[in-house]
Amino acid sequence: MSVQLAHNSYGKSAIRLFKVTRQGEQHEIRDLTVDVTLEGDFDRAHAAGDNSAVLPTDTMRNSVYALAARDTLGCPEEFAGRLGAHFLGAAASAARVTVRIAEHRWHRIVSGDASHGHAFEHGSTEARTTRVMTARDEAVDVESGLEDLVLLKSGHSGFAGYPRDRYTTLPETDDRILATSLSARWGCEDFASDHDAVFANVRRTMLETFAGHDSKSVQHTLYAMGEAVLQRCREVHDIALSMPNRHHLPFDVSRLGEFHANEIFVPTPEPYGLIEATLRRSARDR
Amino acid sequence: MSVQLAHNSYGKSAIRLFKVTRQGEQHEIRDLTVDVTLEGDFDRAHAAGDNSAVLPTDTMRNSVYALAARDTLGCPEEFAGRLGAHFLGAAASAARVTVRIAEHRWHRIVSGDASHGHAFEHGSTEARTTRVMTARDEAVDVESGLEDLVLLKSGHSGFAGYPRDRYTTLPETDDRILATSLSARWGCEDFASDHDAVFANVRRTMLETFAGHDSKSVQHTLYAMGEAVLQRCREVHDIALSMPNRHHLPFDVSRLGEFHANEIFVPTPEPYGLIEATLRRSARDR
Amino acid sequence: MSVQLAHNSYGKSAIRLFKVTRQGEQHEIRDLTVDVTLEGDFDRAHAAGDNSAVLPTDTMRNSVYALAARDTLGCPEEFAGRLGAHFLGAAASAARVTVRIAEHRWHRIVSGDASHGHAFEHGSTEARTTRVMTARDEAVDVESGLEDLVLLKSGHSGFAGYPRDRYTTLPETDDRILATSLSARWGCEDFASDHDAVFANVRRTMLETFAGHDSKSVQHTLYAMGEAVLQRCREVHDIALSMPNRHHLPFDVSRLGEFHANEIFVPTPEPYGLIEATLRRSARDR
Amino acid sequence: MSVQLAHNSYGKSAIRLFKVTRQGEQHEIRDLTVDVTLEGDFDRAHAAGDNSAVLPTDTMRNSVYALAARDTLGCPEEFAGRLGAHFLGAAASAARVTVRIAEHRWHRIVSGDASHGHAFEHGSTEARTTRVMTARDEAVDVESGLEDLVLLKSGHSGFAGYPRDRYTTLPETDDRILATSLSARWGCEDFASDHDAVFANVRRTMLETFAGHDSKSVQHTLYAMGEAVLQRCREVHDIALSMPNRHHLPFDVSRLGEFHANEIFVPTPEPYGLIEATLRRSARDR
Repeated sequence: MSVQLAHNSYGKSAIRLFKVTRQGEQHEIRDLTVDVTLEGDFDRAHAAGDNSAVLPTDTMRNSVYALAARDTLGCPEEFAGRLGAHFLGAAASAARVTVRIAEHRWHRIVSGDASHGHAFEHGSTEARTTRVMTARDEAVDVESGLEDLVLLKSGHSGFAGYPRDRYTTLPETDDRILATSLSARWGCEDFASDHDAVFANVRRTMLETFAGHDSKSVQHTLYAMGEAVLQRCREVHDIALSMPNRHHLPFDVSRLGEFHANEIFVPTPEPYGLIEATLRRSARDR
Repeated sequence: MSVQLAHNSYGKSAIRLFKVTRQGEQHEIRDLTVDVTLEGDFDRAHAAGDNSAVLPTDTMRNSVYALAARDTLGCPEEFAGRLGAHFLGAAASAARVTVRIAEHRWHRIVSGDASHGHAFEHGSTEARTTRVMTARDEAVDVESGLEDLVLLKSGHSGFAGYPRDRYTTLPETDDRILATSLSARWGCEDFASDHDAVFANVRRTMLETFAGHDSKSVQHTLYAMGEAVLQRCREVHDIALSMPNRHHLPFDVSRLGEFHANEIFVPTPEPYGLIEATLRRSARDR
Repeated sequence: MSVQLAHNSYGKSAIRLFKVTRQGEQHEIRDLTVDVTLEGDFDRAHAAGDNSAVLPTDTMRNSVYALAARDTLGCPEEFAGRLGAHFLGAAASAARVTVRIAEHRWHRIVSGDASHGHAFEHGSTEARTTRVMTARDEAVDVESGLEDLVLLKSGHSGFAGYPRDRYTTLPETDDRILATSLSARWGCEDFASDHDAVFANVRRTMLETFAGHDSKSVQHTLYAMGEAVLQRCREVHDIALSMPNRHHLPFDVSRLGEFHANEIFVPTPEPYGLIEATLRRSARDR
Repeated sequence: MSVQLAHNSYGKSAIRLFKVTRQGEQHEIRDLTVDVTLEGDFDRAHAAGDNSAVLPTDTMRNSVYALAARDTLGCPEEFAGRLGAHFLGAAASAARVTVRIAEHRWHRIVSGDASHGHAFEHGSTEARTTRVMTARDEAVDVESGLEDLVLLKSGHSGFAGYPRDRYTTLPETDDRILATSLSARWGCEDFASDHDAVFANVRRTMLETFAGHDSKSVQHTLYAMGEAVLQRCREVHDIALSMPNRHHLPFDVSRLGEFHANEIFVPTPEPYGLIEATLRRSARDR
């Protein structure tokens, strides 16, 4: 029998990087988690234990810190792009390098009317993300995104008109809680876009649409959010949204003798709905 | 041989409660996690399997929802107090009821100049907490607090002048990152305090002191924060602070041939320092 | 501008199912986590808020429990297959149903020479997994696997002979700790395989190979494990292995004046190496 | 106003230690998490930023590795005792040192009839624990224990006969699932006990009692377990047990038209019951 190595990849994940840039008392901080993945011809490492082509993942980690020290980081997409180009040079057997970055949010502490230049409070779990793929013979592929932005609507959300079978017990409702932990990933027409500006625009558009939508279902709101992004952010070519439905179950207090005003809900971690879709600008429209 | 039941307690933990109060399109939301614990004479349940005195923890859960539905919640301390009184009445064998509440933070989504009355974005991991103990023959004991407020100083923080032994390798520094996940708990002289106002005052005082302090150590900053609270918040009688030291290790890029500007750090989850202290207004001062 | 729904899916995740089957005092227990995903023509739900084709995810959950009650579960692959067929029937607009199952491990408590028929101790984090895709016009696609099987070798493991650049500081070693949390997924030639027997054979083969291998790298051991599976388990057509490298860093006690015997290591959660590959029986070999 | 430092402690937590001891091809491995806490007169560090008495927590970490390298570890209680004595010597201002250790479980990989001397599979989440307090003027205080031992009974478990009020909806049952994640801590009469033997005896006794008990409630089974330990393990003076009730809710499939055999349950992570008690040998009995 002979065996074929159909696919292989390796790299370093969860490289934590914190960079401080000081302008006197005013500090800028950046807090990133970086993953590096190489794909290519590493057959002899697998089949023969020959490591002569295997750039150590420890070297990958060092390289991330060295490149972070050398230059201004720039936006996540830029830093990921520099890392991708570096690793393609450093690992001769690599055909493709994928760099993923999640940037964590911090806010400067503001107290009274004084802002403290070097003191920060951590933000929510939301992260700004990017995934940049760099290959020897292809254009760089850049995806931008965000993950774990936790949102909730306590009005203008219902779910009704669905098919029923013998296993259906869910009551229809025109007034439910809709809560989700939004992740989104989008690609731009032009790789040299101003990623910071696009990010701000896409994020604002998704939030505004979520807040203002008359939701008939998670699918309905997800689609409206994606559609609004494609309409308002002309640079964005496609967008994938993932919206787990974090159920907040109404608790029927009437059976306990209390007046039931549809005010009491039980947030439940599991099970959860999982709604995902990718929207794309139509061909004739590009 | 005979066996003595030296201590016992039971209750329901992690009761998740979400309450929506609607004023037309303007909604108020509250998101709480409630723990209820009873102590008392439950010996026959333990030794004989006699449940006649054991208020089921499922009933505790229902009761939390019923009482949440019946009235305005009020601040966490108030709701915990109402629950405590209820359970002392409901469980004749309970000598003491302890109710713990953690309130989770949500912010109204603000977009453009419009604020959306029923759409919310989740805040950070920080929770406002309380622990209220209600006993048959004692005054109600109220403790207020917060937990998991993640803070970081990138300047005005050092650690030097410490003793060295054969196992000491840490270099002294006058410029390190100080990061922590602050938890604090405090008690007030008067149980009828305006807990919302005290909370806001204590939190602001801790943040301002953390931001403005010239830190010689975590202990030094923790003490300054506690001292400032006791000075500025006259209602507060004592305060316990817990400040894990979330190490951000400097990464020496000079050995990689890069210029070393003390800008690159590696956040590490473990091990972590753990610094805790309780400060109290001196007796002569009360 | 017009927008195209390029892809969409929805379903229920993290459905927790525990089933007890009693033969007098001898109980069998099964502990599963089930995810259901539908893909198909749900365009009107997205674009128009029309739910007439949207089988509720709550109905999916109920259906899992109903089908679990009706029949003997069988192996995870069988139960996932029954669920797939059911949902294809229940959701007319679904073109494809994907069911994922993770089965959690429990061991009967054995004490003295008595085995207790209805008392169990939870096993490790390892789960047996499957993913079954059922489509209207395609053969059922069955993948079997396991995840989070945590393994460690304290001997016969090295890493040397790798390329060095200016960012390389890792010392070569012929004696390191190799630790991983193994995940593997495999497909069989014949969908009607005895999945329990194949699972046992694949798992045993991976463990024996891991234990007995002279490891030059994670890649080297991963490949040996996959190759052994393809050699010894004739039903298996291909296998994908994922082996994060959970670094155990040697701690140099010689700088603390202690004798350094390469015995003391620091397990670190991050960063971690991530090594993945898919091996396939060569075409001429099938 | 003057402020009093009512209590303070500091130390290093989550020190991860992995030790390999080799006898040719036969390796012994130990996997520990160590926490060190000092209490004492550190007032000047807090109030004045004077670190001259503050043994760095980084030195604590180094010391744990150095002492682990120097000698055979021995059982957790012994290693914790050596660490306590060391830190009392190293930190002149410390009045008391508390060392906590959790030991994680690994099993040698056994395949066919060959046992692999240096290959291991991780066990369950259960950890063996100890907490040793060493003070200048007191006897060493040793507590032994275990945590996160996940157990389940699918028979001989009920809950009935409890009081009902207007908020009670729970049906009585004589056939429910009882599942818990057991933690236990015990102290011995004689600090020089054979801790390994006591641990094995206590653990076996708790498992056997859990498995064989006719449970009227969690309290009832918890008490029986503690009582059996005090009866069978003469060295044990007192034992504290914590048994969260991990509810497995019966799912009523009859409303879905299926036959209801009390076989289908939904494991739920929250809320959970929390049952705790401490049992002690009666005074006249010692």
